[in-house]
Amino acid sequence: MNHEKTIRLQPQWILPMHTDGEVLEEHDLIIQGERILAIEPRQQADARPCDETLFLPEQVLLPGLVNTHTHLAMNLLRGLADDLPLMTWLNEHIWPAEGQWVSDAFVADGARLAMAELIRGGITCFNDQYFFASAVAREAEQIGLRGLVSLLVIGVPTRWAGSIDEYFDKALALHEEIRDFSRVGTVWSPHAPYTVDDDALERIARHRDDMGLDFHIHLHESAQEIEDSLKQYGERPLARLQRLGLMDRRTLAIHMTQMTEAEIRFCAEAGVRIAHCPESNMKLASGIAPIHALTQAGVTVGIGTDGAASNNDLDLLGEGRSASFLAKVSTGNPEALPAWQVLSMLTRDGARALGMGEHIGTLEAGKQADLITIDMRPLESQPLYDLASHLIYCVSRQQVQNVWVAGQPLLRERRLCTLNEDDLHEVARTWQQRIRPN
Amino acid sequence: MNHEKTIRLQPQWILPMHTDGEVLEEHDLIIQGERILAIEPRQQADARPCDETLFLPEQVLLPGLVNTHTHLAMNLLRGLADDLPLMTWLNEHIWPAEGQWVSDAFVADGARLAMAELIRGGITCFNDQYFFASAVAREAEQIGLRGLVSLLVIGVPTRWAGSIDEYFDKALALHEEIRDFSRVGTVWSPHAPYTVDDDALERIARHRDDMGLDFHIHLHESAQEIEDSLKQYGERPLARLQRLGLMDRRTLAIHMTQMTEAEIRFCAEAGVRIAHCPESNMKLASGIAPIHALTQAGVTVGIGTDGAASNNDLDLLGEGRSASFLAKVSTGNPEALPAWQVLSMLTRDGARALGMGEHIGTLEAGKQADLITIDMRPLESQPLYDLASHLIYCVSRQQVQNVWVAGQPLLRERRLCTLNEDDLHEVARTWQQRIRPN
Repeated sequence: MNHEKTIRLQPQWILPMHTDGEVLEEHDLIIQGERILAIEPRQQADARPCDETLFLPEQVLLPGLVNTHTHLAMNLLRGLADDLPLMTWLNEHIWPAEGQWVSDAFVADGARLAMAELIRGGITCFNDQYFFASAVAREAEQIGLRGLVSLLVIGVPTRWAGSIDEYFDKALALHEEIRDFSRVGTVWSPHAPYTVDDDALERIARHRDDMGLDFHIHLHESAQEIEDSLKQYGERPLARLQRLGLMDRRTLAIHMTQMTEAEIRFCAEAGVRIAHCPESNMKLASGIAPIHALTQAGVTVGIGTDGAASNNDLDLLGEGRSASFLAKVSTGNPEALPAWQVLSMLTRDGARALGMGEHIGTLEAGKQADLITIDMRPLESQPLYDLASHLIYCVSRQQVQNVWVAGQPLLRERRLCTLNEDDLHEVARTWQQRIRPN
Repeated sequence: MNHEKTIRLQPQWILPMHTDGEVLEEHDLIIQGERILAIEPRQQADARPCDETLFLPEQVLLPGLVNTHTHLAMNLLRGLADDLPLMTWLNEHIWPAEGQWVSDAFVADGARLAMAELIRGGITCFNDQYFFASAVAREAEQIGLRGLVSLLVIGVPTRWAGSIDEYFDKALALHEEIRDFSRVGTVWSPHAPYTVDDDALERIARHRDDMGLDFHIHLHESAQEIEDSLKQYGERPLARLQRLGLMDRRTLAIHMTQMTEAEIRFCAEAGVRIAHCPESNMKLASGIAPIHALTQAGVTVGIGTDGAASNNDLDLLGEGRSASFLAKVSTGNPEALPAWQVLSMLTRDGARALGMGEHIGTLEAGKQADLITIDMRPLESQPLYDLASHLIYCVSRQQVQNVWVAGQPLLRERRLCTLNEDDLHEVARTWQQRIRPN
């Protein structure tokens, strides 16, 4: 007998997301402890004693959204600089600000602020890349969010580490520090091919294999990156990583706006997964990832918001809408990335892209209870003929009502359960005054 | 002495929008009757007796947003069909549904539902094209929204009119019917070049000139339209309308995704204005209007949401964000359509695009008091370094707090003042059951 607490959820609709198009009505979902115990017809659930029952009329229950790429702490730099080319934005604004401000406290505060935004937007799992990642991990563990933090390597000195060796030392220490955390894991994550040399990448490849971890990297973000790599290495960045043994089914390639047909085929065959950040790519004019072709070829694609400093929110529902619109207009094919496919990318495929498909991403008995409900009652969602269409094309993240991770409530009727909103406002105000005094 | 009621608004910021980049702090705006009486330093306003004072801390006051192209009643068809090519969507879904359902009651109900969405999203002025437009005009007049309705002509029989002559008769009758309305005007609006023949367009040109009205038309929406026109008329649609005397400074061309450099120059020289609907163009894969080139050439461009059945909301703030992102990625220039320019397109340029620039679109003494406030307090807008960046890149329309048109409050602290939300839900439910019974 298992005596863990059971919660019965009675939404109007359930989207299990293991089959596109499946919408359950008159069904309930039972949470037991941190897992989904069952999804069953309401009549059947009536016979089951539960510790708590939540009536969720006009709400749809679906798996929590998975944000496959972000830089959470950069919430503190949101809107600091806009409408600039990527390298100007980085060199003249973001990197100097980071050089001046980034610290354990900055990252903890920024990540906490960002996590409130994630939760309020229905995101239950993130993949973060940033300095002082143990602060991100501690915040996530305390707040209750699920995620991955980066064992970051970058070939330039920063406030996090002064040399390549220090990056590796800190990465290994971070991995040790959080290995017993229940909600947060680690992933090897060099910044980008243009900031990390072959030697460091080879070291990462060895560590990755020894430790059995995944590997994430910004890749083929812009045409400039390809051009520079051809000049410096005589090969495209993807080919270079392939040569170094880093392009396989434990690789998540972030951005990928520049791809040849051969590269698309290669990613499909090698099992490389992709994190698509359409709004970041649009706002920075980096390019358009060929997502329709990639998914047609069988590549697993998740969606990421990137950092709030670049596009300028962590709105994954909105990012899904942009992904669909961009795929349609860039291919001239209005049938590209239809609503159900985008929903899958936001949930099941996102989980698979992070190597977590066994535990999260769909609603099935035995899986982790990472769940959200969305209120379909607002006038802006009326009338309602097609749930998937509404979720992707007209619902806003403000309609997210409830969020659970591993059965723990993080948002109830839009109130944060594990964070204090007033404190967060104070944190934001304090850093704003420091970074750019009025 | 003028004894009209005065209201003093004390927001944290005012964006008058007659100069890009101008942000006033410690200033108040005084409404008198239906107009703006003054914008003045707070200390100066303290000396002025006012009937009512509203404190609006952490809110920004700006001109109401202008939606330069929509089909309001189509809110009742939102999400009925998606992920389809334009002509399939029209021929197999939208036109059959309209053929079955469109009536004075359908249009009145759909428009009323849409107007609630407009107001809640900060839109104070619309440009609608639809059948049974007198129903739209009556609703707008009663609800208090400002807008234009179409003297619609289309070369196919519909539930609105059975012949070209009937379209003209009804158009002229509509114009007479609403000529004394205070908030709603009319505009000649044939559907598109491919649905109206030369003869009808020539009749419209004569009426337009006699009546001193503007002329709006869907134009160069897709490559197919150009191709078909070349086959049928031996000329591109724009050239054809030019030949018929309809491309000049009283013309609003809607969509314009297909443009040669010569056509861009022509529009600039002729004073043709453009309504840009980026999300509709993306979702239907129609193409990408060259908005950066157009505005650089000096063409006045406003933004439109198109109908809720096509993209699938009436969120003009979001549409502005999409316009900026799309301009950047399609030109490869991240400096294209920066935040301030988009704000202008949503307000001042939108008003000019509708020929209403003298009365609305900026905050200036003497102009109509069409105003909105947006709450910058939500966590998703923290911290705040740059107001324009936030308004375009991270604010959501749910942050719109207050809306006035001609000094009349339509939304106060997010509550609709002239519409009953419960009634609107009932209306949406009733039509949903009729159109697609569960």
